Amino acid sequence: MRPSGRNPEQLREIKFTCGYTKHAEGSVLVEFGDTRVLCTASVETNVPRFLKGKGEGWITAEYGMLPRSTHDRMGREASRGKQGGRTQEIQRLIGRSLRAAVDMKALGENTITIDCDVLQADGGTRTASITGGFVALSLAVQKMLAKKQIKKNPLHGQVASVSVGIFKGVPVLDLDYAEDSNAETDMNVVMNDASAFIEVQGTAEGHAFRKDELDAMLSLAEHGIKQLLEKQAKALENF
Amino acid sequence: MRPSGRNPEQLREIKFTCGYTKHAEGSVLVEFGDTRVLCTASVETNVPRFLKGKGEGWITAEYGMLPRSTHDRMGREASRGKQGGRTQEIQRLIGRSLRAAVDMKALGENTITIDCDVLQADGGTRTASITGGFVALSLAVQKMLAKKQIKKNPLHGQVASVSVGIFKGVPVLDLDYAEDSNAETDMNVVMNDASAFIEVQGTAEGHAFRKDELDAMLSLAEHGIKQLLEKQAKALENF
Amino acid sequence: MRPSGRNPEQLREIKFTCGYTKHAEGSVLVEFGDTRVLCTASVETNVPRFLKGKGEGWITAEYGMLPRSTHDRMGREASRGKQGGRTQEIQRLIGRSLRAAVDMKALGENTITIDCDVLQADGGTRTASITGGFVALSLAVQKMLAKKQIKKNPLHGQVASVSVGIFKGVPVLDLDYAEDSNAETDMNVVMNDASAFIEVQGTAEGHAFRKDELDAMLSLAEHGIKQLLEKQAKALENF
Amino acid sequence: MRPSGRNPEQLREIKFTCGYTKHAEGSVLVEFGDTRVLCTASVETNVPRFLKGKGEGWITAEYGMLPRSTHDRMGREASRGKQGGRTQEIQRLIGRSLRAAVDMKALGENTITIDCDVLQADGGTRTASITGGFVALSLAVQKMLAKKQIKKNPLHGQVASVSVGIFKGVPVLDLDYAEDSNAETDMNVVMNDASAFIEVQGTAEGHAFRKDELDAMLSLAEHGIKQLLEKQAKALENF
Amino acid sequence: MRPSGRNPEQLREIKFTCGYTKHAEGSVLVEFGDTRVLCTASVETNVPRFLKGKGEGWITAEYGMLPRSTHDRMGREASRGKQGGRTQEIQRLIGRSLRAAVDMKALGENTITIDCDVLQADGGTRTASITGGFVALSLAVQKMLAKKQIKKNPLHGQVASVSVGIFKGVPVLDLDYAEDSNAETDMNVVMNDASAFIEVQGTAEGHAFRKDELDAMLSLAEHGIKQLLEKQAKALENF
Amino acid sequence: MRPSGRNPEQLREIKFTCGYTKHAEGSVLVEFGDTRVLCTASVETNVPRFLKGKGEGWITAEYGMLPRSTHDRMGREASRGKQGGRTQEIQRLIGRSLRAAVDMKALGENTITIDCDVLQADGGTRTASITGGFVALSLAVQKMLAKKQIKKNPLHGQVASVSVGIFKGVPVLDLDYAEDSNAETDMNVVMNDASAFIEVQGTAEGHAFRKDELDAMLSLAEHGIKQLLEKQAKALENF
Repeated sequence: MRPSGRNPEQLREIKFTCGYTKHAEGSVLVEFGDTRVLCTASVETNVPRFLKGKGEGWITAEYGMLPRSTHDRMGREASRGKQGGRTQEIQRLIGRSLRAAVDMKALGENTITIDCDVLQADGGTRTASITGGFVALSLAVQKMLAKKQIKKNPLHGQVASVSVGIFKGVPVLDLDYAEDSNAETDMNVVMNDASAFIEVQGTAEGHAFRKDELDAMLSLAEHGIKQLLEKQAKALENF
Repeated sequence: MRPSGRNPEQLREIKFTCGYTKHAEGSVLVEFGDTRVLCTASVETNVPRFLKGKGEGWITAEYGMLPRSTHDRMGREASRGKQGGRTQEIQRLIGRSLRAAVDMKALGENTITIDCDVLQADGGTRTASITGGFVALSLAVQKMLAKKQIKKNPLHGQVASVSVGIFKGVPVLDLDYAEDSNAETDMNVVMNDASAFIEVQGTAEGHAFRKDELDAMLSLAEHGIKQLLEKQAKALENF
Repeated sequence: MRPSGRNPEQLREIKFTCGYTKHAEGSVLVEFGDTRVLCTASVETNVPRFLKGKGEGWITAEYGMLPRSTHDRMGREASRGKQGGRTQEIQRLIGRSLRAAVDMKALGENTITIDCDVLQADGGTRTASITGGFVALSLAVQKMLAKKQIKKNPLHGQVASVSVGIFKGVPVLDLDYAEDSNAETDMNVVMNDASAFIEVQGTAEGHAFRKDELDAMLSLAEHGIKQLLEKQAKALENF
Repeated sequence: MRPSGRNPEQLREIKFTCGYTKHAEGSVLVEFGDTRVLCTASVETNVPRFLKGKGEGWITAEYGMLPRSTHDRMGREASRGKQGGRTQEIQRLIGRSLRAAVDMKALGENTITIDCDVLQADGGTRTASITGGFVALSLAVQKMLAKKQIKKNPLHGQVASVSVGIFKGVPVLDLDYAEDSNAETDMNVVMNDASAFIEVQGTAEGHAFRKDELDAMLSLAEHGIKQLLEKQAKALENF
Repeated sequence: MRPSGRNPEQLREIKFTCGYTKHAEGSVLVEFGDTRVLCTASVETNVPRFLKGKGEGWITAEYGMLPRSTHDRMGREASRGKQGGRTQEIQRLIGRSLRAAVDMKALGENTITIDCDVLQADGGTRTASITGGFVALSLAVQKMLAKKQIKKNPLHGQVASVSVGIFKGVPVLDLDYAEDSNAETDMNVVMNDASAFIEVQGTAEGHAFRKDELDAMLSLAEHGIKQLLEKQAKALENF
Repeated sequence: MRPSGRNPEQLREIKFTCGYTKHAEGSVLVEFGDTRVLCTASVETNVPRFLKGKGEGWITAEYGMLPRSTHDRMGREASRGKQGGRTQEIQRLIGRSLRAAVDMKALGENTITIDCDVLQADGGTRTASITGGFVALSLAVQKMLAKKQIKKNPLHGQVASVSVGIFKGVPVLDLDYAEDSNAETDMNVVMNDASAFIEVQGTAEGHAFRKDELDAMLSLAEHGIKQLLEKQAKALENF
């Protein structure tokens, strides 16, 4: 039934290539099937103005798509002179999601910027960004601990994200572009490793969804995120 | 327990003043307690480029806050030269929510722009904007029908929105600013008059939320939205 | 002869609703007939860079029109990414006019920002903004005196403004939109309570105007401004 | 009494160098003492969208200051990314003033853009721009007539402008920078060759001005503008 | 002598990964040592306005660096709201260089946009972009020929580019970042497969360079570009 | 053969009018035939942030064209809201070229900004800007020495620039617009008074150029620049 031939509860092939680029404190190429996002974590030893002198750190995120990461070429946001609403919405979501895993006191007055740049898009770029962004963040934190920039690990858990939706009347996990562009409902879920929700964003595209559909989607999301959390952990161990 | 003295499942005082301004095809001042939003619906007899010649219409929304609608004065977006990420996120949400109630074929090649301008903010400006925006939209549609610009009512239902959250460990309905700024979880829910979900956006502020908390919040939201739908209907009847 | 049926020397109905919003130190909804402008005064305890350390304060103004305050919807300046020339011209005029009533030494190193947002436009929005802006400023100054932020009242007089013009060959006072858009000459006059001029801006729209026409217009303006000053005083007393 | 040693009713030395640059249809370097403005008139055979198909033309103006035309270097507006409020106000004034001399029907569907670029500033750049702008416009119109682009001269009169003010209590004509920056009142007057007013903009800088002061200033302005109109005519004849 | 241990006339390891992304008509990851640039070619069946109806095509280029492609994180141009001068200079150079290899008549009214996005920077990103850009362009042209969008190959030759410079007094080929940031002179050379120059840009960083130094550098460049042209050809054959 | 009737190795008439404007520390109107550029040098007693506290100065340049300096009117960059790529490229080139003549330590913590504004364009505006910019810079340095703002002359040589190209198959010096727009190759050369190269920028417009053509052009450039250096010196002596 699914264009890719997957079962409704099946993730795409997930791959993390840690250390994909050399300058960033943390970097990973995350792949959810054909969706490929380069996530880097950059550490700076200062904080935004509103936090100065409070002894706390900050996590922020930026998101971009290469102009031809998509089926048709999109105008470059840098040349159009501003980031679109979708971009801003996504980078706010990534930042919020990752901050939920961090003890800002333990981070000290440091800022970590997570850049998520989509090299190739095939649906689910924001969930891949959050999931890969957490890996980049973890790598940067490990480097900070190793260099004794911080004493205590500020990460108090793991965070991952996946999309779910209703496609041809059936709840499915991890939608690719072919599904995403035809789904009746599309939902992005962010959870931690305690099976609790950090963010739930569901949107009816075709028809409004009922509570039982919502429950079915959330259940699929939990199932998928569990696997993503394991794969994150394995990727971090093996690097 | 609530700063306002309300019960957890109690809405603030809700008020619609239809026809608040004279030029717009539809206009309403919506009040959710001290939150006051002026919603206008403007009809134009053309459509965005991507819809030209398809025989369909479009609904779009813009959102703004007057500089001193808030406790401290915010810089004016027009003078800063761009709309912030929060503004764009909200206006995208309003547009998406209202489009869910409209049959675009029946609207014909017309565009209705919903402007939601916050005169005074006290929490819940986006849910008030959606709820009031639907009223403005309905008034404009009535005028179009009366003027025979369209033959058939393109609205196939009602849409309203409310916020819910966990405040001091208790699920509460329709948060005001005092609650909103201290809530552990904040969720905006948009539903139609068939009790189905159009949009669900939940964000963990303090700690991640469990499935049972989510369910409690959604149940409160449904309870609140039912009342809002009735009040919308009454306001439209009485105008 | 006038579309509204008024006599040439007759103002529209003038109304001040003080305390229209709750957050601002001073706020008033001013109405010149169907023209409705929300004026707020916001106090900040600092000054622009060019005044730092001089022991003087500053008054500045910003002006905006809600997108559908006008007959046809105007694009939102925030979304177009800049304030137009007309907006800038008007906000510079409001700021200059109000500064003429203020002893900056007595204000101390405080800045008061007057925001004038047009909810509904029907001609004369800039004169209503100045006239209402003065009321909002006065309310904010009263609050500063009451809270002992300043010792001495920095206002050394009152300021009000009205438009005059030549409509169908006749000098008229306080033009509404129907007149304004057809006037041969349009003039905005700002005066203080000593009957002296703060600003005179006359523009020939149709034909150039003679000295005797100018004199007739200025005489009408003085007549109108006297009434506005009384109404301002009464509104402030009664609040 | 005046820093320059001039009598109160004396203009600075006025000079027009017609044909100062070679590409523009009309060009003149206008000098009011040390204030030097390069005015060019550029003809285009189309009109702005709002005039398309109406058989009428348009006159518009742009104004700029070279970064070091002033005593201290100002930031370049092109590199700051926007034109300031003062610039926009001035260019709107120039355009409005020159349009008052033109029969738009006779101009046909052509646009003439007047660019006024200040090479050196010493007070009165806007009045020099209008006065020189009229000369550039006239030269362009002569060329259009010679090339038979238009049949009838669309100019139905001359336009010139001068500043007046109250300096040390005395009404004076054509303020230079030393006076302008210390004047109590500053007024820019635009008149035509029928001694009628096109624009009057008076601003109280120090104290509000009385009607008799206004009259004295307007009388000085008329005296100065008469001379400017003669000098314009002579410059055009001699070119 | 060179930080990398290379001989003065030695290129870094050069690698082309054709088909690196799937959506673009042509795509290649080009590596000059640790410098990695993703080049994509996107075909559109229209042309910029200035070419409409002339029966000619157009080649244009855009360039960007991912924020953490560099040693320290750079601000994202999209979020700063404009492309910097360096970016614009480079993308103009890439476009000009590639256009030199194309017969615009044979291309027909099609536009090919070459996007060069730096994933990792280690000196020479512009020369890698031109060299990789040509490969992406060739791949897109092959696809157009295969799909019969064009009849004749519009490429009349090959183009490649390399940097040369004076490092510690010695002319060297293909500078990496360690050399580039300390070079006395830096020169980018673009040549075609007829050993002729398309672009020569030499800049004295430390001291001005003599004619004999210029000649030595150009000779090195020719030597390097020959090898790059061979590697391009091989990569295209093997794909 | 040349449209102007000049010999291939002949410069246009070169003219420097020092002290062209009065406010700038250094100012000159430079003319290369009909190309006229106003160059001013402005001294500020501070440095950009990246140089603070290093005891070094800075030279920077800005470039602009008046809207009607060209054959057809160009849009004003200030009103379009950004400087184009060509402008940025040129101002970067001017700054780099002039910095090559300056000992930044001897300049102390001062910044000199060179503004080059094209009053009339006829080809070669960037080479005229560099050549005139050096004169303005020298005048400003003389004033700084005279006022004892600096002790030692920071200029360690002279800098001038000229264009060369291949026009109708013949290498020619100092191209005017008629040649420039039809040249097969266009090269801008910046040299110092030790006959060494500071910048060489050659671009094939029509066909790629051979090494012997490059050599011929460089030889012409050296010949022209020698004369320009002499004329600069004479202009500075005679002022």
